Formats: sequence, structure tokens, C-alpha cells
Amino acid sequence: MAETFRVGLLGHGTVGSAFAELLAERADAIVPVTGLRPEISGVLTRSRGSFEEVLSGSDLIVELMGGLEPARDYVLRAMRAGRHVVSANKQLLAAHGEELSACAREHGVQLRFEGAVAGVVPVIRVLQESLAAAHVERIHGIVNGTTNYILTEMAARGLTYDQALEQAKELGYAEADPTDDVTGRDAAAKMAILARLAFSTPVHLDQVVYEGIEHLTADDIEYAKELGLGLKLIGTAERVDGGISVRVHPAFLYAGHPLASVHGPFNAVTVESETITEVTLSGPGAGGPQTASAVLGDVISAMIPPASGVGGNDISEALPVVNDVESAFYLHMEVADRPGVLAQVAELLGMQGASIRSVVQKGLGENARLVLVLHPLLESRFYAAVRLIGQLDFIRSAPRAIRVIDEEFT
Amino acid sequence: MAETFRVGLLGHGTVGSAFAELLAERADAIVPVTGLRPEISGVLTRSRGSFEEVLSGSDLIVELMGGLEPARDYVLRAMRAGRHVVSANKQLLAAHGEELSACAREHGVQLRFEGAVAGVVPVIRVLQESLAAAHVERIHGIVNGTTNYILTEMAARGLTYDQALEQAKELGYAEADPTDDVTGRDAAAKMAILARLAFSTPVHLDQVVYEGIEHLTADDIEYAKELGLGLKLIGTAERVDGGISVRVHPAFLYAGHPLASVHGPFNAVTVESETITEVTLSGPGAGGPQTASAVLGDVISAMIPPASGVGGNDISEALPVVNDVESAFYLHMEVADRPGVLAQVAELLGMQGASIRSVVQKGLGENARLVLVLHPLLESRFYAAVRLIGQLDFIRSAPRAIRVIDEEFT
Repeated sequence: MAETFRVGLLGHGTVGSAFAELLAERADAIVPVTGLRPEISGVLTRSRGSFEEVLSGSDLIVELMGGLEPARDYVLRAMRAGRHVVSANKQLLAAHGEELSACAREHGVQLRFEGAVAGVVPVIRVLQESLAAAHVERIHGIVNGTTNYILTEMAARGLTYDQALEQAKELGYAEADPTDDVTGRDAAAKMAILARLAFSTPVHLDQVVYEGIEHLTADDIEYAKELGLGLKLIGTAERVDGGISVRVHPAFLYAGHPLASVHGPFNAVTVESETITEVTLSGPGAGGPQTASAVLGDVISAMIPPASGVGGNDISEALPVVNDVESAFYLHMEVADRPGVLAQVAELLGMQGASIRSVVQKGLGENARLVLVLHPLLESRFYAAVRLIGQLDFIRSAPRAIRVIDEEFT
Repeated sequence: MAETFRVGLLGHGTVGSAFAELLAERADAIVPVTGLRPEISGVLTRSRGSFEEVLSGSDLIVELMGGLEPARDYVLRAMRAGRHVVSANKQLLAAHGEELSACAREHGVQLRFEGAVAGVVPVIRVLQESLAAAHVERIHGIVNGTTNYILTEMAARGLTYDQALEQAKELGYAEADPTDDVTGRDAAAKMAILARLAFSTPVHLDQVVYEGIEHLTADDIEYAKELGLGLKLIGTAERVDGGISVRVHPAFLYAGHPLASVHGPFNAVTVESETITEVTLSGPGAGGPQTASAVLGDVISAMIPPASGVGGNDISEALPVVNDVESAFYLHMEVADRPGVLAQVAELLGMQGASIRSVVQKGLGENARLVLVLHPLLESRFYAAVRLIGQLDFIRSAPRAIRVIDEEFT
């Protein structure tokens, strides 16, 4: 009879109850892998249980409460008491990742958080272990399933943003209050966590620049299709001259990009480095059962005796976070349909060093729609040109700009 | 100054020399992760070095010789001497995985082999660790970059098989003797390794049914495009009634399948289970630097003290390998162009329980080409129908059959 491994559970919502169920179901199968039989030894919910009792009766704490406090306090106290901790709390990791990792290292315990990013897609483990040898150059991720579902529906069925959001709510892909998702804030928290691991440097949620999808129109998506582009909410973390850039914004992808074929509520992450070129991981975004499965994978890793030392990679560098980076752009303008318009726009762009990759122009009675895709240039220079273009007398409404991930994939 | 971790290297070909170079380049970055500085303490090649000396001067052995003997003997002796072993030798693992894993468990050492399957795509680690909690139902993989490159070129440029193979050789994607790749044998070895891990059951290369791509024509690919299908060499390992099936064969995929967009020399693996639905991992197939990176990831994991116990999962089940499974099929026939042909073909198929999903028929002067896609049925029943169809008097050349992965993905 295998010895019992006692798991204390903080939080019993959707993910918490899915985790407790999955643990019971898989306990028999875990015995041959770890030599131990896991069981839930205590549960703390909003209305019942005491943290001290759950802690004292456990070998490991699983934190699925969400939010910053008291989750942070409990996780720190558990690690100080010598317990391994598994958490799926992205807010907590994005805001206090440094403090928590330092505490884990100091007390020689493991802090694992695969469930905090991209559900069952094992990007945390791959960054911490498989790619521990790689010098990561860049990560691109679709790390929010709600927004990817909305954009997929807008593109596939020509829905407006509001229609697609409504449909996402009906199907359970969006919460009643979807603010964190549609503004890009949820994705920003996840990119902060990934950037910290990939570059071994402190990154706080507040340092991530983010932009949401609320202002996108079906029209943008329609024009972009003609240029072979698909629209996604993309998180980027990359090395730039002397530092790193971490950001989230809508971006167009060419058809061959590994993230271009990620549809619906799926998540995917592409990691690039010179040695490996690139690896892409994809799968369903965070639902209760998927996140529970990621959490249980972490629990099993922590159970394997003797415990492996994933107390968090050392933070060996402290790279500055850079905000003005190079991007390619899609630029959508309504203009008076008269000669010389394209030439004047091109001249203003050219003065900022922008070079045009493709053009679509269509008449609309007296007006025309002019859509350009530009090769990469510094964002500050691009926006300087857009300000000047917006003042030209033939411009009929404010120019609209969306970034393009300008990479060739075969 | 960090203590030295001594790595003994067996084999110094393409992967071996890339590994030695990468290890030297990344040694500084590995110190903060592991607390130790790895260095190559000895090298055994065909022409120089002694195994005993390399072994006695090492903390860990990296086996990159390839082939069965003496690799098997060296790996067993290293583990019996208490050394962790990292290998990228797929033949060895597919033929002697059981024996090697048992030896690792018995001597309490680690045996890691991420580099043996799909280069830098971390499918071994994900199966052994992230998905240790999942009840895996099925794996589909594109695990041979040579054949995926050839099929991609045939589809994209209308090349014949021979032209595409020639081009693959020129670009270094195929070896001078590509037999192991194009016959499916290389992919079969990798699927044996994956099946063993996914189902915790012994699987030997000899139990894997495989079929290559040598007989495929540009014509098959052309017709299939009209039906929205793309052709890949697919490895499958899945649970079937009372056992498992492991096989490699060309198969058509519908456009939404996660493997349909894997092009050129890339590898990809999709793992399905009820809890997680599916996870897909993709990246460049085995090249020297990519495999070297996977090997170094394994070395780092083995270095982290105290060592985690990946001595190979216990083989807890011994499932029978089943050969007659259900598949959907594409069936391509040249027939005399006269009334009643489709009806007779459909009747013979119907008697075996086959139901038709789509039909394309095209006139070719006196003859016509009739292409059907069928819903899944037992392979034995399908081939019984094909034998009878082949005897009909209006059939102008032997019917051609290719499997179809008949799954809907959104």
C-alpha cells in the first residue's frame, strides 16, 4: 500500500473542484509514477476551513483562490513552512513573481505554476526545463482564449465585435464582465510571467504595454484578408537592443505563421531562439478541466522523490524594459478620391523611413479607402508620420493603425 | 567557482560535435540553473578513446553514436556504474526501451532521450511530466522531416515524388540513402517510443505497422486538394478496444486539423486525452543543432540536484497491440465512363458497411476518374471491398487507397 501524499487545497471554485475530482480519479495511476498516493487532506473556501489547519495537515499546497490577497500571504506562509506550492494564479505570479520565487529558493521548496498560463499548454515547463539551454530571443503568444474566439468569429462569419462578444458570453467563452480579457490585461499578466522565465529578468505586470480588441472592426479584418493577413491578439516578449520589450496588442499575421492557424478559444505560444529556430505549443485555453490537468501535472512533478529543484530559475540578469520597438504596420485611411493622394501619404511615411510593402485602394463614390502594409520601423517614427497624415486635407476620418508580425515562415 | 559536472560523450558526428559546441557556449548560463558547470570530460569516437576511460571520468554519459551495438552495451554498463544517461538514439530506444528503462530503475539513475523523437519538440518531457496525470487516448505525429518536406513540395509545386526527393537530397533534408525515412521505418521507431511512454506498455519497433510514401503520386495530392484534404505521413498510437494500435502511413487531413498546417521539414505531435482535449507541439525536425539542444536540455535536467527520478515510467500495463483498426479512406479509381459505375462501386462498399462522405468524378475521354472519401470502417472490411471492386470489368487500373484522418476540428 503506497504512502499518502497530502494535498491542501485553497479555493474550491470551477478549477478547484475540477482539480479535486481529477485527483481522485487519477490517484491510482499516479502511484506507479511517484510511489505515493495523493489525496486532498483539507480544503479552504471563502466560507469554511482554516488556513492553519489545511497547512499543518498537508505536504503540498495548491492555491486556486485567485486574486492577490490573501493568496500571496498564504503562499508565502506555506513555503516558509517548507511546503511545495502549486498555483494557477496569474495575477499573483505577474505581480509578485520575484518575491515568491525568492522565497521558494530560500526555503528549498518548489513553486510551480503551469496552470497560470495557457491552460494545458505546457509552456512553463518547456521554458524552465527543455529550453533551459537555449538563449531565447522572442516569444509570441495567443494567451487569451476569449479574444481569440471573438476575432475568429469576426473573421469567419463577418460578425461585429459586439455580436461576437455576445456569442462568446452565451457559449461560456467570455465572462459576464470581460474587461480583463478584451482590454488585453489578462494576456499582459501571462506575458509578464513568460518574459520573466524566458529572460531570467524581473518583469512586473505594470511594465507590460497592452492594447485590447474593443476598437477593431469587421472592416479591418475584411481588408486584411485580401492582403493574406489574419488578425490575432498577440503577446510579444523579445530581446531588443540592450533590453527587452513585453507587450500585447492586436496584430496581423501572414498565413504561414505558426500562430495564424490557431482558431477559436485555443491558446498557442511560439518560442524562438537561434539554436532551436522555433517551437510552437498549442491547445485549449484555460477551462476548468484543462487548468486542473496542468495543476495536477505540477503536483505529480513535486511529488517525485527526491524533489527536483524547480524553486524558480535564478534571476541572473536585470534587463531594462524598452518601450519604443520596431513594428510593421497596417494603415487604413478613408481619403478623398483624387490624384496625388497616395504620393503625399507615401512621402510623409518615407520621411520617417517607412517603406511600403503592399497597397489596396478601393473607390467609395467620392471617397476611397486606402490600405497600406509597411515594412518594420520604430513605432515612434510611425506614429509621427500618422499624426502628420491625419492633418492632410484629403483625409476623411482618423487613420487606423494595427501592427503586423512581419516574418516569413515557410 | 561552481563545481564541475563531467559529461562523457560517446560519438562525435554531426549531433555529437554540435552538442559539444553548444555545451561549451552555454556552460556559463547553466551554472545559475544547476549550481554546477558542465564540461566534456572525455570523448569516444570510432577511431579514438576508450569507453572505460570516458566512463570512469564522467558523472553522466551522453550517447550519440547511433545504431544498436555497441551503443546498447555502453548505455547498460554506464547505468550499472551509476551514471545518468542521455541518448538521442531512436533505434536503440525503439528496440531495447524496456530493457534500458528497467536497468535505469534498478540502478536509480536517469535515462533521458528527448533528442530521439522530433528534435527540439519537447514531446518526451511533455508525455512523461506534464501529461503524467492524463489518460492519453491518442497521439498523431509528423515525426519524419524528410518525408514531410517531400510531400510539402509535391503539393506546393506539383513535383513528382522523384523530383521532390532529389531536391530534398540537394538541400540536405534527405540522406544519400533515404530508405529508412521514405519507407516509414524511421517514423515507426519514433512512434514505438511515444506509444510506450503514452500507454505505459511495452512496444517494440517490430510491432509497428508502417507504410512509406514512395508510391504516392502528384495526382493523388491534386484530387485531394479539391476535397479540402492535405497529404502527410502520419504516425498514430491510440487505444482501441482492449489494446493499442501503433502504425505509420500516408494519410489525408482536413484543413482544420492541427497537423495540416505543418509544412516542410517540420515535426509536430498532437496528444489527445479526454481531460485536456488536445495539445499540439511543433518545431523543426532533427537537425544537428536542434537535436543537440534537446540533448543539452536533458543533461541540465539530470544535473539539477537532487536528481529527479525520471528512471523511466513504470510499465504498469501490458496492452495487446491490435492491427485491424477503423480508418476513413480515400479511394481513387480509373473506370470506363459508362452508366451504373458509381452504383456498383457503392454497392460493394455498402456490403462491407462503408458509407461515402464525398465523391469527385471527372471524364478522361472514354474513361473517368472516380475519387471517393469514405467514413471510418474496419480496415479489413475496406480492403475486402477493394479486392472485389478491383475485379469489376469497368475498372481500368488497380484502385488506389490512402487513409484519411477523419476528425472535425474547429
